[in-house]
Amino acid sequence: MKYVSASRLEEFAMEALKRIGLEESGARIVAEFLVRANLRGIDSHGIMRLPIYVKRARLGLINTKAIPRFIRSTGSLALVDGENGFGQIVGSEVMDWCIMRANDTGISGAVVRNSNNFGAACLLAMRACEKGMIGFVLTNTAPAMPPWGGTTLTLGTNPIACAVPSDLGFPIVIDMSTTVVARDKIRAMAKEGKKIPLGWALNKLGRPTEDPLEALDGILLPVGGHKGYCLAFMVEVLSGVLSGSLFGRDVRQIYDFTGPQGVGHFVGCINIEAIMPLNEFKHRLAQLIAQVKSSDLAEGYDRIYLPGEVEFNIEQERLQTGIPVPDEVLLELTKMAASEKISCDLL
Amino acid sequence: MKYVSASRLEEFAMEALKRIGLEESGARIVAEFLVRANLRGIDSHGIMRLPIYVKRARLGLINTKAIPRFIRSTGSLALVDGENGFGQIVGSEVMDWCIMRANDTGISGAVVRNSNNFGAACLLAMRACEKGMIGFVLTNTAPAMPPWGGTTLTLGTNPIACAVPSDLGFPIVIDMSTTVVARDKIRAMAKEGKKIPLGWALNKLGRPTEDPLEALDGILLPVGGHKGYCLAFMVEVLSGVLSGSLFGRDVRQIYDFTGPQGVGHFVGCINIEAIMPLNEFKHRLAQLIAQVKSSDLAEGYDRIYLPGEVEFNIEQERLQTGIPVPDEVLLELTKMAASEKISCDLL
Repeated sequence: MKYVSASRLEEFAMEALKRIGLEESGARIVAEFLVRANLRGIDSHGIMRLPIYVKRARLGLINTKAIPRFIRSTGSLALVDGENGFGQIVGSEVMDWCIMRANDTGISGAVVRNSNNFGAACLLAMRACEKGMIGFVLTNTAPAMPPWGGTTLTLGTNPIACAVPSDLGFPIVIDMSTTVVARDKIRAMAKEGKKIPLGWALNKLGRPTEDPLEALDGILLPVGGHKGYCLAFMVEVLSGVLSGSLFGRDVRQIYDFTGPQGVGHFVGCINIEAIMPLNEFKHRLAQLIAQVKSSDLAEGYDRIYLPGEVEFNIEQERLQTGIPVPDEVLLELTKMAASEKISCDLL
Repeated sequence: MKYVSASRLEEFAMEALKRIGLEESGARIVAEFLVRANLRGIDSHGIMRLPIYVKRARLGLINTKAIPRFIRSTGSLALVDGENGFGQIVGSEVMDWCIMRANDTGISGAVVRNSNNFGAACLLAMRACEKGMIGFVLTNTAPAMPPWGGTTLTLGTNPIACAVPSDLGFPIVIDMSTTVVARDKIRAMAKEGKKIPLGWALNKLGRPTEDPLEALDGILLPVGGHKGYCLAFMVEVLSGVLSGSLFGRDVRQIYDFTGPQGVGHFVGCINIEAIMPLNEFKHRLAQLIAQVKSSDLAEGYDRIYLPGEVEFNIEQERLQTGIPVPDEVLLELTKMAASEKISCDLL
């Protein structure tokens, strides 16, 4: 384990991403997504992803020269083809379009086909908050969950993210997979040699497991039983079926090299100023926050956290201490740097 | 227990609702919402609600003459004051506006303040499906859930509903409270003298309980732990904070007679035709449905259900058999009919 500053990690990621063909601006977006995920403690979506992105690009499975194409737009709603580009770049461009449209019409959305994994969905949703708007992001993912009552992997972990501007210095943010946990969290725990709690997953035979590798080879359980299945189904409809993207069993895992992932997204935003002055909204939100924060505490808890507050606190800390990078991830980054012939001073 | 036909129950509800001052058209909407909930097996939101609606109206806590007022609208987004009318009527009018706007702009939404409980949220979302659109409905409710790590009731059961048109003869529908179960389900079980499973709720002292009355007087647990809390928080922001409605601890229970409920909603829809022909969408959805339906079955399950399929099946059955009305509910309806001096031939 080594602590590496965010800026150093970001520069390293940029160098690798430019090496595989991204322009400066695109490389910066992807590098920022990766490092910001680490800063916020979402290590499973952080720099550990860089080698697999590089590998997929080198295999021609991600198009580093993609320019997202707006196939159709009707006032407030667009259909976008990601042209198999990086999900972070496609998503950012689409969110910027949504922000622009919501400026005029109050609410906007876009469905995206032929895209790729974009890492932490919350980072895309938070882009709207910088403009004083509420951002929404849904995406399908490779199959990880069976339908309720079944055992065949059919739906993804299909996360739901939403970010709301506040006067706290950080937005209120949710970013939740519709499984009990995200696949990448289990992958990260496998890399760290940890067990997973019972109730997260079943093995291939449909039996409860504490082994993260068995879980990755098996079945992730939906959050809240059939409710998680229902949410995952709707995310699949909005991001996969409606966009013209791949959906269900056909979406490819990031470690599947037989073709592009074919991921679909749904991105949207709401312009608060179309309803009330932003300051008034933030003032009202502060009242809700005060209600939440002043709750009596349950046994074993010493404070109430807002959605996104833990991640903000970790970010403040890691901006000081640097980002902890496990030895195994460092080793993979070094190997990747060697094969890409870029300098690596992370060790 | 007695079986009563949907049409007879609806006529009875209409008579009561007109008696308290609703116009024919408004009474029909509310009566349909109540009876359709029963038809779909959501008895907690069905005809058992009629007496409390009548009582609130008689106490002047619901305005039977309300005309929803569009305070502001910006292209695709509206702010609406429900003028303390019935949530079903306010919500239907607002959804119709959303459908009209989505026809032009592809996606639309509305935040609603000063409204009331509208019963089963899915029925409002399904209104969009009749026009070939995808409908969304969120609403805050009276506090039922503490923030994660706390014990003070601050957030409502805050349901999320979404309905998608399919070629199956019924829409795909989700309608889920962000608690493990809805308060009304526990209320219905209390009326039937049933125990609730452990894990649904805590009593006032923060201890697990199987007693529905203790649960109603205590704490409902969020679905999926902190994830349910995060979802409930966002629903509260979108329907309560953003609308200018009451929110958090200030929203009143339907059985609290100290003032209007002050409920807020978020309603929206997506025009599928703005993205692809409706038939193409339905064809793609049918492929996802085929994937889901063909999953291998888990132990103890004999088939896979789609979201909303169980409710559709119950509806088909109850259209034949009539709606089972428990004796206790019949008694309350009879009492209400007597005090309102309307005829009641349900017994």
